[in-house]
Amino acid sequence: MHVTIATDGAYLTLHQNDRATRYHAIWLRDNSPDPETRAAGNGQRLIALRDIPVDTHIAAASINDGTLQVTFAPENKTVTFQLGWLAEHAYDAPKRNGQGWLSENVATWDANLQTDVPVAQFSALAQRGADFANWIEQVTRYGFGKIEGGPVESGALFKVVDLFGFVRETNYGRHFEVRTEVNPTNLAFTGLGLQAHTDNPYRDPVPSIQVLYCLESSAAGGENMVVDGFACVHRLQLENPEYFNVLARHCAQFEYAGEDGVCLTSRRPMIELAPDGELIGVRFNNRSLSAATDIPFDQMDLWYAAYRRLGEIIDDPEMEVTFRLEPGEAFVVDNTRVLHARKAYSGTGTRWLQGCYADKDGLRSTRDALRRLGQEAAE
Amino acid sequence: MHVTIATDGAYLTLHQNDRATRYHAIWLRDNSPDPETRAAGNGQRLIALRDIPVDTHIAAASINDGTLQVTFAPENKTVTFQLGWLAEHAYDAPKRNGQGWLSENVATWDANLQTDVPVAQFSALAQRGADFANWIEQVTRYGFGKIEGGPVESGALFKVVDLFGFVRETNYGRHFEVRTEVNPTNLAFTGLGLQAHTDNPYRDPVPSIQVLYCLESSAAGGENMVVDGFACVHRLQLENPEYFNVLARHCAQFEYAGEDGVCLTSRRPMIELAPDGELIGVRFNNRSLSAATDIPFDQMDLWYAAYRRLGEIIDDPEMEVTFRLEPGEAFVVDNTRVLHARKAYSGTGTRWLQGCYADKDGLRSTRDALRRLGQEAAE
Repeated sequence: MHVTIATDGAYLTLHQNDRATRYHAIWLRDNSPDPETRAAGNGQRLIALRDIPVDTHIAAASINDGTLQVTFAPENKTVTFQLGWLAEHAYDAPKRNGQGWLSENVATWDANLQTDVPVAQFSALAQRGADFANWIEQVTRYGFGKIEGGPVESGALFKVVDLFGFVRETNYGRHFEVRTEVNPTNLAFTGLGLQAHTDNPYRDPVPSIQVLYCLESSAAGGENMVVDGFACVHRLQLENPEYFNVLARHCAQFEYAGEDGVCLTSRRPMIELAPDGELIGVRFNNRSLSAATDIPFDQMDLWYAAYRRLGEIIDDPEMEVTFRLEPGEAFVVDNTRVLHARKAYSGTGTRWLQGCYADKDGLRSTRDALRRLGQEAAE
Repeated sequence: MHVTIATDGAYLTLHQNDRATRYHAIWLRDNSPDPETRAAGNGQRLIALRDIPVDTHIAAASINDGTLQVTFAPENKTVTFQLGWLAEHAYDAPKRNGQGWLSENVATWDANLQTDVPVAQFSALAQRGADFANWIEQVTRYGFGKIEGGPVESGALFKVVDLFGFVRETNYGRHFEVRTEVNPTNLAFTGLGLQAHTDNPYRDPVPSIQVLYCLESSAAGGENMVVDGFACVHRLQLENPEYFNVLARHCAQFEYAGEDGVCLTSRRPMIELAPDGELIGVRFNNRSLSAATDIPFDQMDLWYAAYRRLGEIIDDPEMEVTFRLEPGEAFVVDNTRVLHARKAYSGTGTRWLQGCYADKDGLRSTRDALRRLGQEAAE
């Protein structure tokens, strides 16, 4: 490997065999790992971009023993970079593009996952060992996971949340009870079957994790099902790119105002993309979709046709994984991606679940911290 | 006013004077207010789009006494719409377009707001009357507000959150203490001055509200300042649309891994737009910005130039509002929009604040519920 510097010092190039990878002077300087730039303990950057001269350029660069030494002018500051870190953070490569691409940490699924549902024993998760690491990996990959063998006691769902994050309290409480009610404020609390949906799209930010925990289950019916919204959206895109585009380009509106003092509204697309086209979210909920007013008149018929077709795909049994929660069993879903539904249940016997919300950044943080521990152990 | 129906029944047109407003059959049917379509109590939709025939069209329509009666085929179902509701939800109009537009509920500001900071007395807010409604309106409009005259007791900040929402607990706890620490895990807990920033951009979803509550303040310095990120972004766009675009079109990356078991990362643009260009968020935090790897090589210099210029605008005293929190005073900021900063404070004397996070959907919900109450009282 050798290094060359552009004539004006604006960037350097690492050459290895026939590969050349460029790094800008300003990027290198801003990401310098020296203790004046980055706090040794917590890794936070100690300087702002205003502290780096606007005419920063590379005055010298050399490779020594697995590291790259760079001298920045006009600061006349020499910084050492690990070549491994530079390779991991290389940005001089074609970007993923197109609409709807997914992170490599995500895998889509359909009904074939029925025989391979991510599942773990409550007692094994509590030990936070290999079973826990494996379950967390699967839940982030597939967007849902099941837990078996938990305690049958009110509030046990909080022990599930404690595994990876924190409860997101809402106007429904820190948790909510899911039983048949005589005068429900929300259809979820009746015995009706519900179309697969994501929860609370009328919140912004939407709760990104839901936990449902079963405490009693003697009523007939009431099976739970989950559907991968990302898989459904990809199927829609494959069938008809126009349908995908119209749902991604225009904001739907959602509303919930079923209680005094509550008037929750949001304005977000059913298919949410990052600016570079990454598929990052799905919102789908017939109950709380309010009148769409931000779709141009000449796109409204297309938007409704796309919404209808997405619903048909979501309803297709080939997309769904079904299971019945028994007392002491729970499931966790990524509410920005995986839709869940409940089949109708009868009034005889009882069915009692407790639900709560949490956020997925805690889940990803737990996964990534475990991955780093694993890498350190392997090194 | 009179109504006409398109030949194929796909839409109808309301004619008033020289204005014509069209409504599609499928939109009208999906948004029908009749009790079989919408639950009378909670307003949730009782049917899914799959329950509405795909060949739905308008068979008849007439206007009677402030209402529009529409008969839908093939269901042969007649529904009554209030003309006022239809006017409010008209979508047959040019859409706001361009990049960076703002909701009419938002007003940008700069240092001139110094003499007109939204402020209310703690005791007045607790009564939830006109002062409360006015303060909530201002906080949603300007993205921040101050509270004075609150109790000087640990945990009082939770009473502020109770006014409009719920605490978002994080790995920093339900709340965090802001005092000088000898071995801080986060630079916010030192006496250093901090550049204006939004908090926790490494979370996804980011906490959308922050509350900071002062309990002791005898140290010199430590003034708080706030800057309107939306105003800064608009100024950047006016100066250089390319700068605005490059920050909106590419994802930055943020990271915090300063504690065992924590590895929070996010991938979001510094300037966040809705698909139709609405400016909906700003993320700006030099401490937790990690190495940008999703920006194409040929855009990286431009991206850094834009990031630098945005920082200069944020640092411009003409953009900032400054105040000193005394014991029993607090401020609330919209963390998706308003940056906050702290000037350096000295080690003599004490400075003790408590902070916590919450979410802005609760703030908007409270405002909108109060608005509806006001409208009902006026009717």
